[in-house]
Amino acid sequence: MQRTLKLVTGLWLLSLVQIGAVAKETAAPALLTEKQTFEMSDFQTFGGKIIERVRVGWESYGQMNADKDNVVLVTHYFSGTSHAAGKYHPDDTTPGYWDAIIGPGKAIDTNRFFVVSVDSLANLNAYDANVITTGPASINPATGKPYGLTFPVVTIRDFVNVQKAVLESLGIKRLHAVVGPSMGSMQALEWATAYPDWVDRMVSVIGAGESDAWTTAALEQWATPIRLDPNWQQGNYSAENRPDDGLAAALALITQQALHPQFFARQGQQLGYSPVEQGPLEDINSRHSIVNWLFERAHGRAKKMDANHLLYLVRACQLFVAGHNGDLATGLKTVTAKTLFMPASSDLLLMPYLAQSAHNKLTAQGKHSDYQELHGELGHLEGVLDVSEQAQTLKTFLEN
Amino acid sequence: MQRTLKLVTGLWLLSLVQIGAVAKETAAPALLTEKQTFEMSDFQTFGGKIIERVRVGWESYGQMNADKDNVVLVTHYFSGTSHAAGKYHPDDTTPGYWDAIIGPGKAIDTNRFFVVSVDSLANLNAYDANVITTGPASINPATGKPYGLTFPVVTIRDFVNVQKAVLESLGIKRLHAVVGPSMGSMQALEWATAYPDWVDRMVSVIGAGESDAWTTAALEQWATPIRLDPNWQQGNYSAENRPDDGLAAALALITQQALHPQFFARQGQQLGYSPVEQGPLEDINSRHSIVNWLFERAHGRAKKMDANHLLYLVRACQLFVAGHNGDLATGLKTVTAKTLFMPASSDLLLMPYLAQSAHNKLTAQGKHSDYQELHGELGHLEGVLDVSEQAQTLKTFLEN
Repeated sequence: MQRTLKLVTGLWLLSLVQIGAVAKETAAPALLTEKQTFEMSDFQTFGGKIIERVRVGWESYGQMNADKDNVVLVTHYFSGTSHAAGKYHPDDTTPGYWDAIIGPGKAIDTNRFFVVSVDSLANLNAYDANVITTGPASINPATGKPYGLTFPVVTIRDFVNVQKAVLESLGIKRLHAVVGPSMGSMQALEWATAYPDWVDRMVSVIGAGESDAWTTAALEQWATPIRLDPNWQQGNYSAENRPDDGLAAALALITQQALHPQFFARQGQQLGYSPVEQGPLEDINSRHSIVNWLFERAHGRAKKMDANHLLYLVRACQLFVAGHNGDLATGLKTVTAKTLFMPASSDLLLMPYLAQSAHNKLTAQGKHSDYQELHGELGHLEGVLDVSEQAQTLKTFLEN
Repeated sequence: MQRTLKLVTGLWLLSLVQIGAVAKETAAPALLTEKQTFEMSDFQTFGGKIIERVRVGWESYGQMNADKDNVVLVTHYFSGTSHAAGKYHPDDTTPGYWDAIIGPGKAIDTNRFFVVSVDSLANLNAYDANVITTGPASINPATGKPYGLTFPVVTIRDFVNVQKAVLESLGIKRLHAVVGPSMGSMQALEWATAYPDWVDRMVSVIGAGESDAWTTAALEQWATPIRLDPNWQQGNYSAENRPDDGLAAALALITQQALHPQFFARQGQQLGYSPVEQGPLEDINSRHSIVNWLFERAHGRAKKMDANHLLYLVRACQLFVAGHNGDLATGLKTVTAKTLFMPASSDLLLMPYLAQSAHNKLTAQGKHSDYQELHGELGHLEGVLDVSEQAQTLKTFLEN
C-alpha cells in the first residue's frame, strides 16, 4: 500500500492560525482549525475489494508532543464530519460539534492532547465544502464517472483502517485514547478490538458494541425512502436530479429517532402545534406545523448530503460487531484498553442496553470498564449536544 | 409472553397477531361470528364534508339482552378490523385478534355482554374479503371512479359517529363499556368525551389521549414511503400498479415500532442473524436476514391493504385529541365514565407517558380513573398479543 500525505494548504498557515489562536486565548478562547487532506492508493476493504484512490479530510486541535504519545482520536457520528471542535474562521457562526468538550482546559484538553479527527469513507456530507471523502459519489478513476453502487461495501473496520493510515502518516504509533459518539463509538470500540496495541483508553458515547437485529432493521428503515425515490435510479442519479425527497425523508426519520418526545413537546409548543390544525383537517396533502418543521429542516440538510452515501453508512453500521469476528464477546477478547461507556438514559435510537451489553461483557472478561449514563431530554442527541454534562467524568477518565 | 409466542416454524407468513392467536386458541371452544353490513347516506364528517354513501362491516359476539344495556363496543387498532374475536368458520386457522379476552367466561364475557365491533372508515385492509369499509379506494357515486385523495379527511370522531349509527340501528342507546387498543383507544376515549351519556366505562389499552407533537411526526413517517413510491401517482394508482413497495415500507416501519428490541433479538436468533452476514458484506443491494424477514412479511400483508387508506388513517390519528375541542384537559372535562388505562411498559410507539397524561388529567378533575401497565417484551403489541396478562384487571373493571 502506498500512502501519501497531502495538505490542502501549507502546513505553515495552520501553524500561524494555531499560534494566533493561542495568543488570543486569554481574550477570546477561539480554537481555530483547518481541514487537511490525506490520500492513499489501493485501499483494501474488509470485504476484500480495492479502492484505487482514497482521499479523506482530517482536522486536529492542540499540539503533538515530541514522543507523539499525547494523541486522542475522535471518531464522528453518522451524519457528522471531522469538524469535531473549533472554527475555521473566527467569525464562523458555529464551532465543531463537540466544541463543548474539546479545547484548552476542557474535558479533552487541547493543552495536553493532540486531538485528531478524520472524515469517514462515504461521509454523508459529500457536498459540504469542508468535507473530503471517498464514496459512491466520488469519481471512479477507472471509468471517469461516479462509482454509484459499484463502490464496494465499506465497514466500520475500514473507517478505522483509513484513520490508522492518517495517523501513521503523522508518525503516530499509539493513541492515548479514542473517543466517539454513536457511529463514532463503533469506530472507537473497533479500534480497541482490532488494534489493541494502539489503544490505551476507549470512550463509547451513546454507543453500541454491535448492531443487533433491532438496530440492523431500524437502520434499513433509513435506507428505504431513498430507494423508493424515483430519482434514485438504482443509485445512478445525476447531480441535477438527486433523490432529495427520499434523502430528506430518511433524515426526518433519523432526526426524530435521535430525539425524544419531550424535545418534540417543547418544539411543538414553540410552533403552536395542536392535533386539530385547520390545514391538515381540510386537506390530506396539508401537514401539521411539527411535521413541516421536521421535514423542512431535513430538506435543508439534504442539500449537502449524498443519498448513496447514506446507504453505505447504513450498511457499515449494520455490519458492525466489535472485532468483526463472530459474536461480540469473542470480538471483545482482544481489548486491553481501559473503557468507558456513556449511553444516554433517554436514548431511543441506540438504547442503553447496547452499551450495557458491551460493558458487561468486558467486565465479565475481567477487564477495566466504566459506565456512566448521560441524563436529559434530548434522547440520542444528549451524546452530541449535551455531553458536557459528563465532562468531568470524561476528563478524569482521560487524565488517569 | 412465552405462552403467547409459541412460534411455529414455517408460520411466519402469518401476522404476529395471528400467531399469537394460534397459540391461545387450542383449548377454547369455538366462538362463531359473521360479518354484517351497515349502510347510511349523507354522512357528515367532523370537517364538515359529506360522504354520500357509507358502508361498513361489523361483527358481534354474545347476545343482546332485552333492555339492550349489556353492550360492549370494541374499537380496533390501526391495521385491525372488526374481527375482534371468534371465527367465521370452525376451520378458520385463526380467530379475531382479541379472542384471548373476548368469549364465554373470558375478560369480556360473552355470556354476559353483547360485544360489537365495527370496521373503521378507510380501514387499512380494504381488499380483505372480510372487511367492509368506505374510504379513498371506494367508488365515488358521483364519478363512478375511486375517490383517491378527493375522499374527505376523516377523524377518530367520524369513526365514532359511524359506530354510533350502527348501534342506533340496533336500538342501542347506551354502552356498558367501550374498549379498544391503540387507535381503538382513541376511539374509546373519544366516545367518552363526545357522548358521555352513552358511556359507562372506558378502557384504553396501549393508548393515548391525544396525538402529541412526537406522535404526529412519527405517524407522518409512516405516510412518507407511500408518497415516495412512483406508483402512488398522487393517490391515483390503478389496481394493477399499486404502490406496494411504499406500502410495504410503511408496514415494515409500523411493525418495528410496534415491537421491541428483545423480540427482534429472539427473532434474529431464530434466523441465525449476525451483523457480518456475507451477502450484505459483498453487495449493497443484499439484505440481512432480519431485514428480509421484516420486509417480506410486510409485502405479504400489503396485498390486502390500501396505500391511500393508510394515509387517511395516519391523518385521523394525527388529528386526534380527545373531544377534538382544543386541548386534552378541556376535551376530558365532559367525561363521566369510569376509565381504565392499560399502556405497556415496553411500548416504544405510544409510550406510557401518553396514557399517564390522560389518566392524570382525569384524576386531577376528580374523576374515577384506574391505571395498570402491561408488562412483557412485545412493546406496543403487548396490548394486542399479550393483553390477557391483565385479563383479570379488565374483567373486574367491566363487571363492577
